[in-house]
Amino acid sequence: MTTKELISTVEFPVRFSEVDFMQIVWHGNYIKYMEEGREDFGRKYGISYMQIRDKGYMTPLVKINCDFKKTLSYEDKVIVETRYIDSDAAKIIYAFRIFRASDHELVATGESVQVFLDMNRELVLTIPPFFEAWKKKWGIR
Amino acid sequence: MTTKELISTVEFPVRFSEVDFMQIVWHGNYIKYMEEGREDFGRKYGISYMQIRDKGYMTPLVKINCDFKKTLSYEDKVIVETRYIDSDAAKIIYAFRIFRASDHELVATGESVQVFLDMNRELVLTIPPFFEAWKKKWGIR
Amino acid sequence: MTTKELISTVEFPVRFSEVDFMQIVWHGNYIKYMEEGREDFGRKYGISYMQIRDKGYMTPLVKINCDFKKTLSYEDKVIVETRYIDSDAAKIIYAFRIFRASDHELVATGESVQVFLDMNRELVLTIPPFFEAWKKKWGIR
Amino acid sequence: MTTKELISTVEFPVRFSEVDFMQIVWHGNYIKYMEEGREDFGRKYGISYMQIRDKGYMTPLVKINCDFKKTLSYEDKVIVETRYIDSDAAKIIYAFRIFRASDHELVATGESVQVFLDMNRELVLTIPPFFEAWKKKWGIR
Repeated sequence: MTTKELISTVEFPVRFSEVDFMQIVWHGNYIKYMEEGREDFGRKYGISYMQIRDKGYMTPLVKINCDFKKTLSYEDKVIVETRYIDSDAAKIIYAFRIFRASDHELVATGESVQVFLDMNRELVLTIPPFFEAWKKKWGIR
Repeated sequence: MTTKELISTVEFPVRFSEVDFMQIVWHGNYIKYMEEGREDFGRKYGISYMQIRDKGYMTPLVKINCDFKKTLSYEDKVIVETRYIDSDAAKIIYAFRIFRASDHELVATGESVQVFLDMNRELVLTIPPFFEAWKKKWGIR
Repeated sequence: MTTKELISTVEFPVRFSEVDFMQIVWHGNYIKYMEEGREDFGRKYGISYMQIRDKGYMTPLVKINCDFKKTLSYEDKVIVETRYIDSDAAKIIYAFRIFRASDHELVATGESVQVFLDMNRELVLTIPPFFEAWKKKWGIR
Repeated sequence: MTTKELISTVEFPVRFSEVDFMQIVWHGNYIKYMEEGREDFGRKYGISYMQIRDKGYMTPLVKINCDFKKTLSYEDKVIVETRYIDSDAAKIIYAFRIFRASDHELVATGESVQVFLDMNRELVLTIPPFFEAWKKKWGIR
């Protein structure tokens, strides 16, 4: 049995303020790019920050990493591909691939891990029912 | 009768991520520098964001401007001078002067205007009592 | 004789990282939004940062201001309208209007002024020939 | 034989613009905090971005990660501890620990890896002589 792949792809130009002294996109902006990917994924698959919040949860990040393989310059366009990685734990995991749009060169890869907090900001150790339902809806389980 | 001058001064290094493609501090970061000045003023004179919030108000900005006279480079140190400008209106007004620390060159000037919202986010048209008391304490009125 | 209006309009979602403690878009991000407007204008009318640089000039900001009229929340979409304001001086002036997309409410207005530096970073006091040509091309003079 | 530990520690307040919708420091700002740590280390041990550049090298990041253990709020003070991790490869590796100043709670840990590029932006595969000399000076080898 294979798991269905949930992927979103969003494209935008490098903004002037994102380029650093070395005249490449400052590495910290890739974390923002991953967030733009995550937000795009959330809008596409009905699992946005606000939709999760309406269910009574917050999902702060507990882990992030990024591997920088190439650089992005001003006037490049960026493509962020966000892929959902399923887990048995009460976590939301995404894998990211960031491409330069012009030549589809892979510029960076990364991963983010989020946990569930309830409205008292207590860690939730079991997968919340709404998230189980979301998985079912998208054929993951 | 003269009004007492309330002024705070804070110094910090230009950070790598603040420098842009032209290898000078990106203009948008001066808005952040002014906020660092405003926060320093608030800590010094007991009028921080949190202290205002404890009184039941929020003070969003309604106006900001900045004149850029010189540039700042990476490895420069920045001095932000924040001066309270008294007003008869229900407003908090600050004037800023940003200097390069090494030669005390005036790099930029600016001004910010804030209004008072109550906790229902309604605009407050008269000066809140806590702010009148704050003015009196510092000899402004 | 009327001057042709040069206007560009760009739309994008509020990003999570742009929202502040008050759960509205942090005021400093409007400066970034204006830059996104300016970049969109540059792409549309052939006067981008890189195109100006290829002519041998840089155009740092010397003045910026912003009036905040309403607030933007997370999940709002932003529309930035950028209008070229002609001047007899060696300056590039833009007026900005920022709207909430859902109800087209005017959220903020602003203006930016840029000057021309040559490649030695010396201020250029007369309008550069390439910019005169650009104005002519778009029917401004 | 033990290797000498090179560690720097820098402290600063959480800035208003760094706090997000959840009223905690936005995770992407930890990447900036690590950079503030790296810059502080560079100033302390004579290995700043500019000093490396004067030797003919740039050192872009190729890898970064961060584990978030606790949260930081507005009005917290942050301590960033930056520790040099020696490597046989032509890399600069730092380990970071981010603390809340008030109770010295460990808030996050992270690591960054940088490589050496020469001025043609070509990857340098052997440790540059200036960096070997720097290691010797600080008793690492």
